[in-house]
Amino acid sequence: MSDILPITDRTRLRRAPQRGAFDRETLYAILDAMPLCHIGYTLNGSPIVMPTLQWREGDHVYWHASSAARGLRAALTQEVCVTVSLFDGLVLARSAMHHSANFRAAMIFGRPQEVTDPDQKVEKLKNLIEHFYPGRWDQLRPMTEQEAKATSVLSLPIEEASAKIRTGGVQDDEDDYSLPIWAGVIPLSLQMQPAIPDPRNLPDVEMPDHATYFKFG
Amino acid sequence: MSDILPITDRTRLRRAPQRGAFDRETLYAILDAMPLCHIGYTLNGSPIVMPTLQWREGDHVYWHASSAARGLRAALTQEVCVTVSLFDGLVLARSAMHHSANFRAAMIFGRPQEVTDPDQKVEKLKNLIEHFYPGRWDQLRPMTEQEAKATSVLSLPIEEASAKIRTGGVQDDEDDYSLPIWAGVIPLSLQMQPAIPDPRNLPDVEMPDHATYFKFG
Repeated sequence: MSDILPITDRTRLRRAPQRGAFDRETLYAILDAMPLCHIGYTLNGSPIVMPTLQWREGDHVYWHASSAARGLRAALTQEVCVTVSLFDGLVLARSAMHHSANFRAAMIFGRPQEVTDPDQKVEKLKNLIEHFYPGRWDQLRPMTEQEAKATSVLSLPIEEASAKIRTGGVQDDEDDYSLPIWAGVIPLSLQMQPAIPDPRNLPDVEMPDHATYFKFG
Repeated sequence: MSDILPITDRTRLRRAPQRGAFDRETLYAILDAMPLCHIGYTLNGSPIVMPTLQWREGDHVYWHASSAARGLRAALTQEVCVTVSLFDGLVLARSAMHHSANFRAAMIFGRPQEVTDPDQKVEKLKNLIEHFYPGRWDQLRPMTEQEAKATSVLSLPIEEASAKIRTGGVQDDEDDYSLPIWAGVIPLSLQMQPAIPDPRNLPDVEMPDHATYFKFG
Protein backbone atom coordinates (compact mmCIF):
# COMPACT_ATOMS: atom_id res chain seq x y z
CA MET A 1 0.00 0.00 0.00
CA SER A 2 1.51 3.29 -1.08
CA ASP A 3 1.60 6.25 1.24
CA ILE A 4 0.70 8.47 -1.68
CA LEU A 5 -2.76 8.15 -3.16
CA PRO A 6 -3.25 8.36 -6.92
CA ILE A 7 -4.41 11.63 -8.44
CA THR A 8 -7.53 11.06 -10.51
CA ASP A 9 -10.09 13.15 -12.25
CA ARG A 10 -12.30 13.02 -9.17
CA THR A 11 -9.67 13.77 -6.59
CA ARG A 12 -8.30 16.74 -8.54
CA LEU A 13 -11.54 18.60 -7.97
CA ARG A 14 -10.33 21.76 -6.37
CA ARG A 15 -7.88 24.19 -7.83
CA ALA A 16 -4.34 24.30 -6.54
CA PRO A 17 -4.29 21.34 -4.21
CA GLN A 18 -1.50 22.02 -1.78
CA ARG A 19 1.37 19.82 -0.83
CA GLY A 20 0.36 16.76 1.12
CA ALA A 21 -3.16 16.59 -0.19
CA PHE A 22 -2.79 13.02 -1.40
CA ASP A 23 -0.78 11.32 1.31
CA ARG A 24 -2.46 8.83 3.60
CA GLU A 25 -1.15 10.34 6.81
CA THR A 26 -2.88 13.66 6.10
CA LEU A 27 -6.07 11.94 5.05
CA TYR A 28 -6.21 9.55 8.00
CA ALA A 29 -5.66 12.37 10.48
CA ILE A 30 -8.78 14.10 9.15
CA LEU A 31 -10.89 10.92 9.24
CA ASP A 32 -9.77 10.19 12.80
CA ALA A 33 -10.48 13.72 14.00
CA MET A 34 -14.14 13.82 12.99
CA PRO A 35 -16.59 10.90 12.93
CA LEU A 36 -19.33 12.92 11.24
CA CYS A 37 -19.25 12.29 7.52
CA HIS A 38 -21.51 13.09 4.59
CA ILE A 39 -22.13 10.32 2.11
CA GLY A 40 -23.19 11.24 -1.40
CA TYR A 41 -24.94 8.84 -3.76
CA THR A 42 -27.78 9.05 -6.22
CA LEU A 43 -31.34 7.87 -5.78
CA ASN A 44 -33.57 7.79 -8.83
CA GLY A 45 -31.09 10.02 -10.59
CA SER A 46 -30.95 12.69 -7.88
CA PRO A 47 -27.95 13.26 -5.66
CA ILE A 48 -28.48 12.66 -1.94
CA VAL A 49 -26.13 13.74 0.82
CA MET A 50 -26.70 11.83 4.04
CA PRO A 51 -24.92 12.58 7.30
CA THR A 52 -23.76 9.63 9.38
CA LEU A 53 -20.83 8.58 11.56
CA GLN A 54 -17.76 6.89 10.10
CA TRP A 55 -14.85 5.17 11.70
CA ARG A 56 -11.57 4.07 10.17
CA GLU A 57 -9.80 0.73 10.47
CA GLY A 58 -6.52 0.71 8.58
CA ASP A 59 -7.13 1.56 4.94
CA HIS A 60 -10.95 1.32 5.10
CA VAL A 61 -13.68 3.55 6.41
CA TYR A 62 -16.83 2.01 7.84
CA TRP A 63 -20.31 3.18 8.64
CA HIS A 64 -23.48 1.49 9.73
CA ALA A 65 -27.15 1.92 9.05
CA SER A 66 -30.48 0.36 9.76
CA SER A 67 -30.91 -2.60 7.43
CA ALA A 68 -34.30 -1.15 6.55
CA ALA A 69 -32.99 2.26 5.46
CA ARG A 70 -33.74 3.04 1.83
CA GLY A 71 -30.59 5.03 1.26
CA LEU A 72 -28.46 2.11 2.31
CA ARG A 73 -29.61 -0.15 -0.49
CA ALA A 74 -28.98 2.54 -3.08
CA ALA A 75 -25.50 3.16 -1.69
CA LEU A 76 -24.63 -0.51 -1.97
CA THR A 77 -25.04 -0.65 -5.69
CA GLN A 78 -23.13 2.37 -6.86
CA GLU A 79 -20.17 4.68 -6.48
CA VAL A 80 -20.33 6.97 -3.46
CA CYS A 81 -18.37 9.92 -2.15
CA VAL A 82 -17.67 10.07 1.58
CA THR A 83 -16.65 13.53 2.77
CA VAL A 84 -15.39 14.39 6.25
CA SER A 85 -15.03 18.07 7.11
CA LEU A 86 -13.81 20.00 10.10
CA PHE A 87 -14.73 23.67 10.33
CA ASP A 88 -11.66 25.06 12.08
CA GLY A 89 -12.07 28.79 11.97
CA LEU A 90 -13.28 32.03 10.50
CA VAL A 91 -10.77 34.23 8.70
CA LEU A 92 -11.54 37.96 8.71
CA ALA A 93 -9.53 39.86 6.12
CA ARG A 94 -9.29 43.51 5.09
CA SER A 95 -11.25 42.91 1.89
CA ALA A 96 -14.40 40.83 1.43
CA MET A 97 -12.60 38.73 -1.16
CA HIS A 98 -10.01 37.39 1.25
CA HIS A 99 -12.44 36.40 3.97
CA SER A 100 -12.21 32.68 4.30
CA ALA A 101 -12.66 29.68 6.55
CA ASN A 102 -10.05 27.39 7.99
CA PHE A 103 -11.03 23.79 7.44
CA ARG A 104 -9.82 20.27 6.86
CA ALA A 105 -11.72 18.09 4.42
CA ALA A 106 -11.22 14.56 3.14
CA MET A 107 -13.08 12.99 0.23
CA ILE A 108 -13.08 9.28 -0.54
CA PHE A 109 -14.54 7.81 -3.72
CA GLY A 110 -15.48 4.22 -4.38
CA ARG A 111 -18.03 1.47 -4.22
CA PRO A 112 -18.94 0.35 -0.70
CA GLN A 113 -19.26 -3.28 0.27
CA GLU A 114 -21.54 -4.70 2.90
CA VAL A 115 -20.04 -6.76 5.69
CA THR A 116 -22.19 -9.85 5.28
CA ASP A 117 -20.52 -12.42 7.53
CA PRO A 118 -22.49 -12.28 10.82
CA ASP A 119 -19.47 -12.72 13.10
CA GLN A 120 -17.48 -10.16 11.18
CA LYS A 121 -20.38 -7.73 11.36
CA VAL A 122 -20.57 -8.02 15.15
CA GLU A 123 -16.80 -7.55 15.28
CA LYS A 124 -17.14 -4.34 13.28
CA LEU A 125 -19.93 -3.05 15.51
CA LYS A 126 -17.71 -3.79 18.49
CA ASN A 127 -14.95 -1.80 16.82
CA LEU A 128 -17.37 1.10 16.34
CA ILE A 129 -18.23 1.19 20.04
CA GLU A 130 -14.59 0.78 21.06
CA HIS A 131 -13.52 3.50 18.62
CA PHE A 132 -15.56 6.01 20.58
CA TYR A 133 -15.53 4.42 24.03
CA PRO A 134 -12.58 2.08 24.67
CA GLY A 135 -13.52 -0.76 27.01
CA ARG A 136 -17.26 -0.16 26.78
CA TRP A 137 -18.27 -3.13 24.63
CA ASP A 138 -17.58 -5.68 27.37
CA GLN A 139 -19.59 -3.65 29.89
CA LEU A 140 -22.72 -3.55 27.73
CA ARG A 141 -25.66 -5.89 27.61
CA PRO A 142 -24.55 -8.29 24.83
CA MET A 143 -25.86 -7.68 21.33
CA THR A 144 -28.65 -10.01 20.29
CA GLU A 145 -28.78 -11.82 16.98
CA GLN A 146 -31.86 -9.79 16.08
CA GLU A 147 -30.05 -6.51 16.74
CA ALA A 148 -27.13 -7.57 14.56
CA LYS A 149 -29.55 -8.47 11.77
CA ALA A 150 -31.24 -5.09 11.99
CA THR A 151 -27.95 -3.32 11.42
CA SER A 152 -25.91 -3.18 8.24
CA VAL A 153 -22.23 -2.33 8.16
CA LEU A 154 -20.64 -0.87 5.05
CA SER A 155 -16.97 -0.55 4.22
CA LEU A 156 -15.15 1.53 1.66
CA PRO A 157 -11.48 1.06 0.79
CA ILE A 158 -9.41 4.23 0.90
CA GLU A 159 -8.00 3.91 -2.60
CA GLU A 160 -9.15 7.03 -4.41
CA ALA A 161 -9.18 9.97 -2.04
CA SER A 162 -7.90 13.47 -1.43
CA ALA A 163 -7.63 16.02 1.31
CA LYS A 164 -7.78 19.76 1.32
CA ILE A 165 -6.75 21.96 4.20
CA ARG A 166 -6.77 25.69 4.83
CA THR A 167 -4.96 26.69 7.96
CA GLY A 168 -3.17 29.71 9.37
CA GLY A 169 -3.82 33.39 9.21
CA VAL A 170 -5.13 36.11 6.95
CA GLN A 171 -3.72 36.44 3.42
CA ASP A 172 -4.51 39.96 2.30
CA ASP A 173 -3.45 41.88 -0.77
CA GLU A 174 -0.22 43.66 0.07
CA ASP A 175 -1.69 47.13 -0.41
CA ASP A 176 -4.47 46.41 2.05
CA TYR A 177 -2.21 45.88 5.07
CA SER A 178 -1.92 49.62 5.48
CA LEU A 179 -5.67 49.98 6.04
CA PRO A 180 -6.98 50.51 9.57
CA ILE A 181 -9.17 47.38 9.47
CA TRP A 182 -9.06 44.68 12.11
CA ALA A 183 -8.15 41.32 10.64
CA GLY A 184 -7.67 38.00 12.34
CA VAL A 185 -8.74 34.42 12.80
CA ILE A 186 -11.41 33.06 15.09
CA PRO A 187 -10.64 29.40 15.78
CA LEU A 188 -13.57 27.00 16.05
CA SER A 189 -13.69 23.56 17.57
CA LEU A 190 -16.28 20.95 18.38
CA GLN A 191 -16.18 20.63 22.14
CA MET A 192 -17.71 18.24 24.63
CA GLN A 193 -19.88 19.74 27.32
CA PRO A 194 -20.28 18.08 30.75
CA ALA A 195 -22.01 14.71 30.46
CA ILE A 196 -25.69 14.44 31.38
CA PRO A 197 -26.17 11.13 33.22
CA ASP A 198 -29.36 9.25 32.40
CA PRO A 199 -31.85 9.86 35.24
CA ARG A 200 -32.48 6.12 35.39
CA ASN A 201 -28.85 5.19 36.06
CA LEU A 202 -28.62 2.91 39.11
CA PRO A 203 -27.36 4.73 42.19
CA ASP A 204 -24.01 2.95 42.31
CA VAL A 205 -22.85 3.38 38.72
CA GLU A 206 -20.17 5.95 38.06
CA MET A 207 -19.34 7.62 34.80
CA PRO A 208 -16.58 5.60 33.12
CA ASP A 209 -13.48 7.33 31.78
CA HIS A 210 -14.36 6.21 28.29
CA ALA A 211 -17.42 8.48 28.31
CA THR A 212 -15.13 11.42 27.66
CA TYR A 213 -12.39 9.64 25.73
CA PHE A 214 -13.10 10.80 22.22
CA LYS A 215 -11.36 13.99 21.15
CA PHE A 216 -12.69 15.91 18.18
CA GLY A 217 -10.38 17.90 15.99
CA MET B 1 -45.57 30.35 0.62
CA SER B 2 -46.70 27.51 2.82
CA ASP B 3 -45.13 26.86 6.19
CA ILE B 4 -45.29 23.16 5.47
CA LEU B 5 -43.04 21.75 2.79
CA PRO B 6 -44.31 19.04 0.45
CA ILE B 7 -43.35 15.44 1.19
CA THR B 8 -41.70 13.90 -1.86
CA ASP B 9 -39.88 10.74 -2.67
CA ARG B 10 -36.58 12.43 -1.95
CA THR B 11 -37.53 14.12 1.28
CA ARG B 12 -39.05 10.95 2.72
CA LEU B 13 -35.63 9.33 2.80
CA ARG B 14 -35.34 8.31 6.39
CA ARG B 15 -37.67 6.07 8.27
CA ALA B 16 -40.18 7.52 10.67
CA PRO B 17 -39.61 11.24 10.20
CA GLN B 18 -40.88 12.87 13.32
CA ARG B 19 -43.39 15.65 13.68
CA GLY B 20 -42.09 18.93 12.45
CA ALA B 21 -39.69 17.51 9.92
CA PHE B 22 -41.28 19.37 7.04
CA ASP B 23 -42.07 22.79 8.47
CA ARG B 24 -40.05 25.78 7.40
CA GLU B 25 -39.43 27.04 10.92
CA THR B 26 -37.62 23.83 11.88
CA LEU B 27 -35.67 23.79 8.66
CA TYR B 28 -34.66 27.44 8.78
CA ALA B 29 -33.45 27.12 12.37
CA ILE B 30 -31.02 24.39 11.28
CA LEU B 31 -29.76 26.36 8.28
CA ASP B 32 -29.24 29.45 10.42
CA ALA B 33 -27.39 27.53 13.14
CA MET B 34 -24.66 26.11 10.92
CA PRO B 35 -23.12 27.73 7.85
CA LEU B 36 -21.12 24.64 6.92
CA CYS B 37 -23.01 22.65 4.31
CA HIS B 38 -22.24 19.70 2.07
CA ILE B 39 -23.37 19.97 -1.53
CA GLY B 40 -23.87 16.78 -3.51
CA TYR B 41 -23.91 16.63 -7.29
CA THR B 42 -22.52 14.32 -9.92
CA LEU B 43 -19.46 14.77 -12.08
CA ASN B 44 -18.94 12.40 -14.98
CA GLY B 45 -21.48 10.10 -13.40
CA SER B 46 -19.86 9.98 -9.96
CA PRO B 47 -21.32 11.60 -6.88
CA ILE B 48 -19.26 14.38 -5.30
CA VAL B 49 -19.85 15.88 -1.86
CA MET B 50 -18.23 19.27 -1.48
CA PRO B 51 -18.14 21.22 1.79
CA THR B 52 -18.76 24.94 1.61
CA LEU B 53 -20.51 27.71 3.55
CA GLN B 54 -24.15 28.55 2.97
CA TRP B 55 -26.28 31.40 4.13
CA ARG B 56 -30.03 31.83 4.01
CA GLU B 57 -32.06 34.79 2.78
CA GLY B 58 -35.78 34.19 3.14
CA ASP B 59 -36.74 31.06 1.27
CA HIS B 60 -33.42 30.62 -0.55
CA VAL B 61 -30.02 29.33 0.44
CA TYR B 62 -26.92 30.79 -1.16
CA TRP B 63 -23.30 29.80 -1.50
CA HIS B 64 -20.37 31.15 -3.43
CA ALA B 65 -17.41 29.68 -5.23
CA SER B 66 -14.50 30.66 -7.37
CA SER B 67 -15.75 31.20 -10.90
CA ALA B 68 -12.94 28.89 -12.05
CA ALA B 69 -13.95 25.95 -9.84
CA ARG B 70 -14.81 22.85 -11.83
CA GLY B 71 -17.43 21.63 -9.40
CA LEU B 72 -19.35 24.83 -9.73
CA ARG B 73 -20.05 24.40 -13.41
CA ALA B 74 -21.29 20.86 -12.88
CA ALA B 75 -23.53 22.01 -10.04
CA LEU B 76 -25.10 24.65 -12.23
CA THR B 77 -26.49 22.24 -14.75
CA GLN B 78 -28.11 19.64 -12.56
CA GLU B 79 -30.06 18.78 -9.45
CA VAL B 80 -28.11 19.07 -6.24
CA CYS B 81 -28.68 18.16 -2.60
CA VAL B 82 -27.54 20.64 0.05
CA THR B 83 -27.24 19.11 3.50
CA VAL B 84 -26.57 21.03 6.71
CA SER B 85 -25.79 18.98 9.81
CA LEU B 86 -25.11 19.77 13.44
CA PHE B 87 -23.50 17.07 15.58
CA ASP B 88 -25.11 17.81 18.93
CA GLY B 89 -24.08 14.95 21.15
CA LEU B 90 -23.10 11.37 21.85
CA VAL B 91 -25.69 9.08 23.38
CA LEU B 92 -24.30 6.23 25.50
CA ALA B 93 -26.88 3.52 26.13
CA ARG B 94 -26.85 0.22 28.03
CA SER B 95 -26.74 -1.83 24.82
CA ALA B 96 -24.60 -1.22 21.75
CA MET B 97 -27.76 -1.05 19.64
CA HIS B 98 -29.15 2.00 21.38
CA HIS B 99 -26.00 4.06 21.23
CA SER B 100 -26.74 7.04 19.09
CA ALA B 101 -25.90 10.61 18.23
CA ASN B 102 -27.94 13.71 18.79
CA PHE B 103 -28.03 15.78 15.63
CA ARG B 104 -30.00 18.20 13.51
CA ALA B 105 -29.89 17.81 9.75
CA ALA B 106 -31.57 19.64 6.89
CA MET B 107 -31.60 18.50 3.27
CA ILE B 108 -32.64 20.69 0.36
CA PHE B 109 -33.10 19.39 -3.17
CA GLY B 110 -33.27 21.38 -6.36
CA ARG B 111 -31.51 23.00 -9.26
CA PRO B 112 -29.31 25.97 -8.32
CA GLN B 113 -29.28 29.19 -10.27
CA GLU B 114 -26.36 31.51 -10.69
CA VAL B 115 -26.77 35.14 -9.69
CA THR B 116 -25.68 36.70 -12.96
CA ASP B 117 -26.58 40.38 -12.54
CA PRO B 118 -23.34 42.09 -11.40
CA ASP B 119 -25.02 44.47 -8.94
CA GLN B 120 -27.13 41.71 -7.49
CA LYS B 121 -24.06 39.53 -7.10
CA VAL B 122 -22.22 42.19 -5.13
CA GLU B 123 -25.35 42.65 -3.02
CA LYS B 124 -25.35 38.93 -2.24
CA LEU B 125 -21.67 38.94 -1.34
CA LYS B 126 -22.37 41.86 0.97
CA ASN B 127 -25.16 39.83 2.55
CA LEU B 128 -22.73 36.94 3.06
CA ILE B 129 -20.26 39.17 4.93
CA GLU B 130 -23.04 40.81 6.93
CA HIS B 131 -24.58 37.44 7.78
CA PHE B 132 -21.43 36.52 9.67
CA TYR B 133 -20.18 39.95 10.68
CA PRO B 134 -22.87 42.64 10.87
CA GLY B 135 -21.53 46.06 9.96
CA ARG B 136 -18.27 44.77 8.49
CA TRP B 137 -18.96 45.33 4.81
CA ASP B 138 -18.77 49.13 5.07
CA GLN B 139 -15.49 48.92 6.97
CA LEU B 140 -13.73 46.84 4.33
CA ARG B 141 -11.68 47.91 1.36
CA PRO B 142 -14.38 48.01 -1.36
CA MET B 143 -14.73 45.03 -3.66
CA THR B 144 -13.23 45.51 -7.09
CA GLU B 145 -14.99 44.61 -10.31
CA GLN B 146 -12.33 41.96 -10.92
CA GLU B 147 -12.99 40.35 -7.54
CA ALA B 148 -16.70 40.23 -8.20
CA LYS B 149 -16.07 38.58 -11.56
CA ALA B 150 -13.84 35.96 -9.97
CA THR B 151 -16.63 34.91 -7.64
CA SER B 152 -19.83 33.10 -8.50
CA VAL B 153 -22.91 33.12 -6.32
CA LEU B 154 -25.45 30.33 -6.48
CA SER B 155 -28.94 30.23 -5.07
CA LEU B 156 -31.30 27.38 -4.39
CA PRO B 157 -34.97 27.86 -3.53
CA ILE B 158 -36.12 26.01 -0.42
CA GLU B 159 -39.01 24.21 -2.07
CA GLU B 160 -38.25 20.53 -1.61
CA ALA B 161 -36.59 19.94 1.73
CA SER B 162 -36.78 18.07 4.98
CA ALA B 163 -35.25 18.04 8.43
CA LYS B 164 -34.41 15.29 10.82
CA ILE B 165 -33.57 15.79 14.46
CA ARG B 166 -32.55 13.50 17.28
CA THR B 167 -32.51 15.17 20.63
CA GLY B 168 -32.84 14.26 24.28
CA GLY B 169 -31.66 11.33 26.33
CA VAL B 170 -31.03 7.62 26.17
CA GLN B 171 -33.80 5.33 24.92
CA ASP B 172 -32.97 1.87 26.22
CA ASP B 173 -34.93 -1.36 26.16
CA GLU B 174 -37.02 -1.48 29.31
CA ASP B 175 -35.30 -4.61 30.65
CA ASP B 176 -31.89 -2.98 30.35
CA TYR B 177 -32.58 -0.19 32.83
CA SER B 178 -31.93 -2.59 35.71
CA LEU B 179 -28.34 -3.19 34.54
CA PRO B 180 -25.48 -1.48 36.38
CA ILE B 181 -24.23 0.31 33.25
CA TRP B 182 -23.62 4.04 33.10
CA ALA B 183 -25.73 5.70 30.41
CA GLY B 184 -26.00 9.32 29.44
CA VAL B 185 -25.54 12.03 26.89
CA ILE B 186 -22.41 14.02 26.13
CA PRO B 187 -23.46 17.28 24.48
CA LEU B 188 -21.26 18.65 21.72
CA SER B 189 -21.11 22.12 20.29
CA LEU B 190 -18.99 24.08 17.86
CA GLN B 191 -17.42 26.80 19.94
CA MET B 192 -15.41 29.90 19.15
CA GLN B 193 -11.99 30.18 20.75
CA PRO B 194 -10.39 33.56 21.52
CA ALA B 195 -9.64 35.49 18.32
CA ILE B 196 -6.07 35.59 17.01
CA PRO B 197 -5.45 39.12 15.68
CA ASP B 198 -3.42 39.33 12.51
CA PRO B 199 0.17 40.30 13.44
CA ARG B 200 0.07 43.00 10.78
CA ASN B 201 -2.95 44.80 12.24
CA LEU B 202 -2.19 48.51 12.67
CA PRO B 203 -1.53 49.45 16.29
CA ASP B 204 -4.71 51.48 16.70
CA VAL B 205 -7.29 49.02 15.38
CA GLU B 206 -9.43 47.22 17.91
CA MET B 207 -11.33 44.01 17.47
CA PRO B 208 -14.87 44.91 16.40
CA ASP B 209 -17.85 43.34 18.16
CA HIS B 210 -18.90 41.70 14.92
CA ALA B 211 -15.80 39.48 15.05
CA THR B 212 -17.53 37.34 17.64
CA TYR B 213 -21.13 37.87 16.57
CA PHE B 214 -21.92 34.59 14.91
CA LYS B 215 -23.32 31.90 17.17
CA PHE B 216 -23.15 28.29 16.07
CA GLY B 217 -25.79 25.84 17.12
